[in-house]
Amino acid sequence: MDAAVDPGAATTGEMLTADPANDGVDAAVAAARRVVAALLHAGGNSAAEMNDVAGRLNAIAEHLEEHAPGTDERLVDMWAGEGVARHDPVTGPENAIAPPLHVYGLPDGSVSGTVTLGLPYQGPPGCVHGGVSALLLDHTLGVANAWGPGPSGMTGTLTLRYRRRTPLFEELTVSARQVSHTGRKIRTVGTISAGGEVCVEADGLFIEVDLPVPR
Amino acid sequence: MDAAVDPGAATTGEMLTADPANDGVDAAVAAARRVVAALLHAGGNSAAEMNDVAGRLNAIAEHLEEHAPGTDERLVDMWAGEGVARHDPVTGPENAIAPPLHVYGLPDGSVSGTVTLGLPYQGPPGCVHGGVSALLLDHTLGVANAWGPGPSGMTGTLTLRYRRRTPLFEELTVSARQVSHTGRKIRTVGTISAGGEVCVEADGLFIEVDLPVPR
Repeated sequence: MDAAVDPGAATTGEMLTADPANDGVDAAVAAARRVVAALLHAGGNSAAEMNDVAGRLNAIAEHLEEHAPGTDERLVDMWAGEGVARHDPVTGPENAIAPPLHVYGLPDGSVSGTVTLGLPYQGPPGCVHGGVSALLLDHTLGVANAWGPGPSGMTGTLTLRYRRRTPLFEELTVSARQVSHTGRKIRTVGTISAGGEVCVEADGLFIEVDLPVPR
Repeated sequence: MDAAVDPGAATTGEMLTADPANDGVDAAVAAARRVVAALLHAGGNSAAEMNDVAGRLNAIAEHLEEHAPGTDERLVDMWAGEGVARHDPVTGPENAIAPPLHVYGLPDGSVSGTVTLGLPYQGPPGCVHGGVSALLLDHTLGVANAWGPGPSGMTGTLTLRYRRRTPLFEELTVSARQVSHTGRKIRTVGTISAGGEVCVEADGLFIEVDLPVPR
């Protein structure tokens, strides 16, 4: 594993992920994210009226489902245009599962972003789930491929090394850079760090492919 | 990578993950999950009244936050008792990020579960995000360590090999088993398969540790 990414890199480059709006679907998704976290904070022993909450949430889901296009039509719409995706589970302002992480492209060819994760992302007590770290890194390596000098591709092999526990409720820096490309093979590395110390390292081999877009 | 896990193994063993209830916080979380998916299905171009939806969701979040204990107190409660966790982002009935996956322990020492993933888990068009596959596998390898003959531990190194695209909207089988333990080192492997074909393989090295529990 190269020490190829400076975890202290400032996140002051070009924003490579979708910029959330303060209204419309982005505002509704931000509120949904707040509900997801609040449900975990309240838990099963709280005095909140959970059956009433369930009823109100199901009514909202019914309203949204009534106004949703069919899945095939929606997939075409999701992938139309040339901009960055707005729906992925790491950076997407339209996806309440995404924390969301915002990733910036830096002049040295690397990418970096910061995020603070709460209870929905917990693995060991008070720590980020190792699989969530893998999710953040796999995605950020992909963003680095789009920003870096070489081609993009799909993940072939991803190796994660967990160096220390990754804390919840503290600012994390997620960084990545493409280190080589030979033929259709692309190698990209990245880290998650907290307080200047590397918590997780990722080393990815990506394969250049033409991805079919739904039409 | 061993062909150590039979992707066709029946999921008819002992349930190792939390059994969701039909009321209380579990019902509210199931409804929140439905909202998260419906927001993605509706998208920014739908006729749904998104600012109204945002207002209704924020009101629900406020009600829940008013009835939530402090985070330190909640962490103690989350980790109290001897049962399986109810809050993790893969299997937790109290976590709307979790699909959720239910994992069963089989008599041969392996574990297995099935899940069908929708739009919130999308990476490439119509496919499961590679990082989501990593999240499911990291967690399921951990469940296999708890079910298998050896000790449990925290992930040290996790290697994922992506063999073919993992489809959305189709039943996936997630399986894992502990293959060895030597001293504090535990090796555990797993797969995600669809239609009997392996999509992703995972090979994990875990380190046996005593995890401090919040008190």
